Amino acid sequence: MSQERDPNTIYIGRKPPMNYVMAVIACFNNNAEKVTLKARGQAISTAVDVAEVIRRKFLKDVSIEQIAIGTEEITPQEGGNPRKVSTMEITLKQ
Amino acid sequence: MSQERDPNTIYIGRKPPMNYVMAVIACFNNNAEKVTLKARGQAISTAVDVAEVIRRKFLKDVSIEQIAIGTEEITPQEGGNPRKVSTMEITLKQ
Repeated sequence: MSQERDPNTIYIGRKPPMNYVMAVIACFNNNAEKVTLKARGQAISTAVDVAEVIRRKFLKDVSIEQIAIGTEEITPQEGGNPRKVSTMEITLKQ
Repeated sequence: MSQERDPNTIYIGRKPPMNYVMAVIACFNNNAEKVTLKARGQAISTAVDVAEVIRRKFLKDVSIEQIAIGTEEITPQEGGNPRKVSTMEITLKQ
């Protein structure tokens, strides 16, 4: 998930949701037509929060173009069996 | 979210994901054409896990028909200001 570094892709992690909201607003202010939120595991619910806060509070002309879910296999850095983790991508469009 | 009690709607909460996986499989075995997973807040990531486990491990002919996100306002039972919580609905189709 971290190979590509599209500036209009925001990776959602453990920071407060408003950090990601601000990052998305910056992309749209930079004339991005679409911004994609990517998250996995527990961060998936944060990604939904971010999308909802953006379109309800900040950018009311932004709509959800697509929501996709999937599964990735993660190999722990400390070794051991790979485990599966759910992923989600939310594409926002202005 | 708890008004209607469609037997083919599974409300995702804090139980282990496999409990919900089994509930969804039971619906499809009962000839349901569609099953909807509903979750809010942190349970959203569990709902994605449930959908992924079902279609990758158990019912490979099940596909995701629709994913919708939204916001609900919840008034705490002990009083206080209502707060907003994100919601998600995943519709699975056999």
